[in-house]
Amino acid sequence: MPTVTFIPSYRKIDVEKGTTVLDAAQRAGLNINVVCGGHGKCGKCIVLIKGGRYEFDREKYGKFFTQNEMMTGSCLACTTTVLSDLQVFVPDSTLIQEQKILTDQLKAEIEFFPSVKKYYVELSPPTLDNPQPDLSRLLWGIHKSGGPSPEKVYAPLEVLRIIPERLRHSNWKVTATVALVPGGYRVIDLEENDTAKRLYGAAVDLGTTTVVAYLRDLTDGSILSVASNYNRQISCGEDILSRVNFAKRNGLEKLQALAVESINAAITLAANRAGIDREDIYEVVVAGNTVMTHILLGIDPAYMISEPYVPVVRRALSVAGSRIGIACDPNAGLFSFPAVSDFIGGDIIADILACGMAERDEISLMIDIGTNFEVVLGNRDWMFSCAGAAGPALEGGEVLFGMRANPGAIERIKIDPDTLDPTYSTINGFRPAGICGSGLIDLLAELICACVIDRNGRIDEGIAKRRIRKGRHGMEYVVVFADDTDIRKDIVITENDIKSLIMSKASILAACMTLMKEAGITREQIATIYFAGAFGNYLDKRNATIIGLIPEIPSEQIKNIGNGAIAGANIALINRRKRKILDEIAMKIAYIELNAESSFMDEYTQGTFLPHTDLTLFPNVQRFLNSCRMRKG
Amino acid sequence: MPTVTFIPSYRKIDVEKGTTVLDAAQRAGLNINVVCGGHGKCGKCIVLIKGGRYEFDREKYGKFFTQNEMMTGSCLACTTTVLSDLQVFVPDSTLIQEQKILTDQLKAEIEFFPSVKKYYVELSPPTLDNPQPDLSRLLWGIHKSGGPSPEKVYAPLEVLRIIPERLRHSNWKVTATVALVPGGYRVIDLEENDTAKRLYGAAVDLGTTTVVAYLRDLTDGSILSVASNYNRQISCGEDILSRVNFAKRNGLEKLQALAVESINAAITLAANRAGIDREDIYEVVVAGNTVMTHILLGIDPAYMISEPYVPVVRRALSVAGSRIGIACDPNAGLFSFPAVSDFIGGDIIADILACGMAERDEISLMIDIGTNFEVVLGNRDWMFSCAGAAGPALEGGEVLFGMRANPGAIERIKIDPDTLDPTYSTINGFRPAGICGSGLIDLLAELICACVIDRNGRIDEGIAKRRIRKGRHGMEYVVVFADDTDIRKDIVITENDIKSLIMSKASILAACMTLMKEAGITREQIATIYFAGAFGNYLDKRNATIIGLIPEIPSEQIKNIGNGAIAGANIALINRRKRKILDEIAMKIAYIELNAESSFMDEYTQGTFLPHTDLTLFPNVQRFLNSCRMRKG
Repeated sequence: MPTVTFIPSYRKIDVEKGTTVLDAAQRAGLNINVVCGGHGKCGKCIVLIKGGRYEFDREKYGKFFTQNEMMTGSCLACTTTVLSDLQVFVPDSTLIQEQKILTDQLKAEIEFFPSVKKYYVELSPPTLDNPQPDLSRLLWGIHKSGGPSPEKVYAPLEVLRIIPERLRHSNWKVTATVALVPGGYRVIDLEENDTAKRLYGAAVDLGTTTVVAYLRDLTDGSILSVASNYNRQISCGEDILSRVNFAKRNGLEKLQALAVESINAAITLAANRAGIDREDIYEVVVAGNTVMTHILLGIDPAYMISEPYVPVVRRALSVAGSRIGIACDPNAGLFSFPAVSDFIGGDIIADILACGMAERDEISLMIDIGTNFEVVLGNRDWMFSCAGAAGPALEGGEVLFGMRANPGAIERIKIDPDTLDPTYSTINGFRPAGICGSGLIDLLAELICACVIDRNGRIDEGIAKRRIRKGRHGMEYVVVFADDTDIRKDIVITENDIKSLIMSKASILAACMTLMKEAGITREQIATIYFAGAFGNYLDKRNATIIGLIPEIPSEQIKNIGNGAIAGANIALINRRKRKILDEIAMKIAYIELNAESSFMDEYTQGTFLPHTDLTLFPNVQRFLNSCRMRKG
Repeated sequence: MPTVTFIPSYRKIDVEKGTTVLDAAQRAGLNINVVCGGHGKCGKCIVLIKGGRYEFDREKYGKFFTQNEMMTGSCLACTTTVLSDLQVFVPDSTLIQEQKILTDQLKAEIEFFPSVKKYYVELSPPTLDNPQPDLSRLLWGIHKSGGPSPEKVYAPLEVLRIIPERLRHSNWKVTATVALVPGGYRVIDLEENDTAKRLYGAAVDLGTTTVVAYLRDLTDGSILSVASNYNRQISCGEDILSRVNFAKRNGLEKLQALAVESINAAITLAANRAGIDREDIYEVVVAGNTVMTHILLGIDPAYMISEPYVPVVRRALSVAGSRIGIACDPNAGLFSFPAVSDFIGGDIIADILACGMAERDEISLMIDIGTNFEVVLGNRDWMFSCAGAAGPALEGGEVLFGMRANPGAIERIKIDPDTLDPTYSTINGFRPAGICGSGLIDLLAELICACVIDRNGRIDEGIAKRRIRKGRHGMEYVVVFADDTDIRKDIVITENDIKSLIMSKASILAACMTLMKEAGITREQIATIYFAGAFGNYLDKRNATIIGLIPEIPSEQIKNIGNGAIAGANIALINRRKRKILDEIAMKIAYIELNAESSFMDEYTQGTFLPHTDLTLFPNVQRFLNSCRMRKG
């Protein structure tokens, strides 16, 4: 069998002739980026064959390569087949980058009220004088060690069946794991000897694209490790819609299995990193959007993607993890977050839990931005929510040199108002390859401050600077000239790009405005705006306000909560009391269907200016733009 | 393949050559009596081959046959193999007689509080204006139809998975089955259209020898049918001890499967008789002794049969029936009665529930007699219990012409005090073949009243009547002369037989006395004595008192509850409130280990007289016996 050697890791794997390089890489443990699921459609899995014989149709997939890549023998791993021993160079950019997760929120003090506890007990063996049944002997032992009183504790069949042998084999020294369940407590495991220190839980963000798992010590709540990987369902479709359609065609089983596999992989990785046995994980808390949650639990999501968009269930659910294949302790519970609707899922409820807006009197606005956006407005008494498609612009799609937040993406830009030359920084400090969302927002704000573009987003053709020019796609601003890039092309932003960006930001602003109108709230009444999602983390808050992505409030009142889904899942994992309020939160939130609101279209139209048609809504931005314009003269 | 025809039913079955007649009979649906499990050891499965070729070792099994049976070609079905077409006559006595079950207790008004209900709901389909999730739509529908409020109702994964398709396919007309569970309610089934009338439950007595199932309509509590069959575990051992030892050698799986199979067979038979689908059975309540309950649930009973005799669990358990293989609705619950100890099991708790002694202020004494006996004394505030081996005499064992209560058994006897000739009746009016327990007790009482025996059980050798004679086994009384019997032998009772019977009754009386002493209770304080078990049903209460089987109290205060286990299971099935008090009852009962009580042996010795050494404890019996003696002169 040919041996494939991957460089620079020097992992080796023996494979059958005809295997794809992608398969080989995955079996070698490399996390190759395959957004399209390995069908030669996304062009993300570029590798460089350094030696050996292989088959690859370079004509067919030529469009994915730069000229340089073509010449050096780059291939798509997914459509290249192995014919002999191969040496394959895998560029960093082809590997899945583990998501940067801000743990600030998670480091915050979360009150520790775990719902699973372990009790080590040393029992006196039965005698003729004390022939108490094994179960009561055990439960009284647990009670004496500080556990709940025996009549409140239930032991399921699996545990009853192991009790007699375990008690006797351990010489009556055992550790019982007891979980809080509706109506009482349940013994979920019984181990020999003292294992009370080995009690772990996992908080999981089951995203459409990415799965993140946090591993925590449930004896003290501390974080042990974090791991993330792609949601393996990507092979069945990139977005939610295509996954549900896949399920309609092929049944739910495969998608469900892939969701479980993705979670298991992330948990296993985290467990390996922490050096613990995943069998010692006794609880898994999962926050995911409504479709992901349905699929994970094997509940048909089909009726959510067409009118009238109805989920099967929106409440929080507790099931035995092993029922759906979660590879932890066989009796570990799996808790899934509740949802409000098809669009406002468990991930958003987790955001709300993470930012704490539902537990305060003051009014907050929470915005989670991805391919879609969700907005929630309210406080402990009331909440309105809505969701919409922001379009791909803010994630780097439909923008000529836009890219995801991968190494080499420009993430920060400042433009000198006099020279119009930018200074920028890239992710990981690599040579620039494109611009990611946060860079695009900076760019938009800087261009208007530098008076390069007007409030319509049109580039001032009268500016005589080399960076402002007419290109193939119309007027454009050159961010980086080819020589300084990794892609040997000028990285530019065009008027079309700017138009796409304005349309995206207008949707989000209009959603905020519509909720505020619905609630009868003005921007002055909003105490805090929270950004959730990876995007929010890297956003310059002031620039977001300048372009009118969000209503104007003082910058210091804008906060990033990062990945709120994982933060919320963490809170629910270690504080069972918070779990109780989740269903209440979900019930309290009114969902506003934007397409049914005529005012949304009005707001959208008004929002297609920078920052807005009505500048009185952005008084500080107005003042600032005036000062920029005056300085330019 | 040879065809075996069974007479008189004329059931036919085609079988492979070499099949045993027993196998053939079982496959033809005949309920052959095989106490030993088909190993040629009990001699119960006698059949008569009327024609055809077969193989049977008549020498080896000769001891089981009368001469007449030998001559006519009788065989044991279990060791006879089929060689050609056969005509097999199956005598009635070879068929398992379905247990006579007294339903008096069951006809008594039991308050009807079922724990499972069905709700037929017609839902309005979701619209854009009302995109409520399927589950909440359903739960609100149930609530509007009189069900519990939605937040109290839980739907398990199995139901969540079928909800969307079922609602839509039925055009939003469904029937939900809702069960009361700890902490709330659970939707356990969802069916299309209106099936609300199809809601059934089964009460099961899982005895060591026999399984009895009652089928009830859970919409009104009415009894639909009854069925019983042998416990198929008999093939693994006749009594509890041998079954536990079987489990120790071979693991629990087979015994567990056989217990389930026995219950399923009884339920299926009952369902067929009632003309219902067993999938419409939503709840099964099982009362069984502690070992049977452990085995049924797959919990190791091993530690109950040796010191210090410890069960694993004694509380009531609710499990999903399908978890252990019960063939009803897949989500049907199985409720098993709690126990007090290894000897005082769920069957006895069911007796207590059936006679109601734990719910009254007055003091009752309850006696369940089988191969073993259990005695419970007490009232709503306190209870003492004990158990012991009565020996086989009362069931017809160790008595020369004793037999089980099968057709042909003498069950009632009166002896003319002058002629000493008896009048008797047999079960089903067949020619007498032996004497069963109730007949033996009558016989003992009549013999002492007729002054044939003294209070030691010795036969008066001075009586010159042809029925009193010296036989092979010493002095004996002839109950039936050979010509009038079915067995062509004189049916007699010997002094040895009488001794065995006195030892049996002395154990039971001593147990009662020991509990009374422990509780500081005299016979005058006992309001009622209850007999539970088949034996008690046929007992002459006055005769039981005369021989001193039980303490003397007025006859009208002695009651038979029949099969208390099935009666109690029935009560728990249709009245969920009674279920709640079971664990309390079980906790309240103190268990007295008779072997550890020195007073028990004293009581036993004093009880080996008819009725007792101390006649002042039996004042009315004393008066009556004196009058008998005086009449004789």
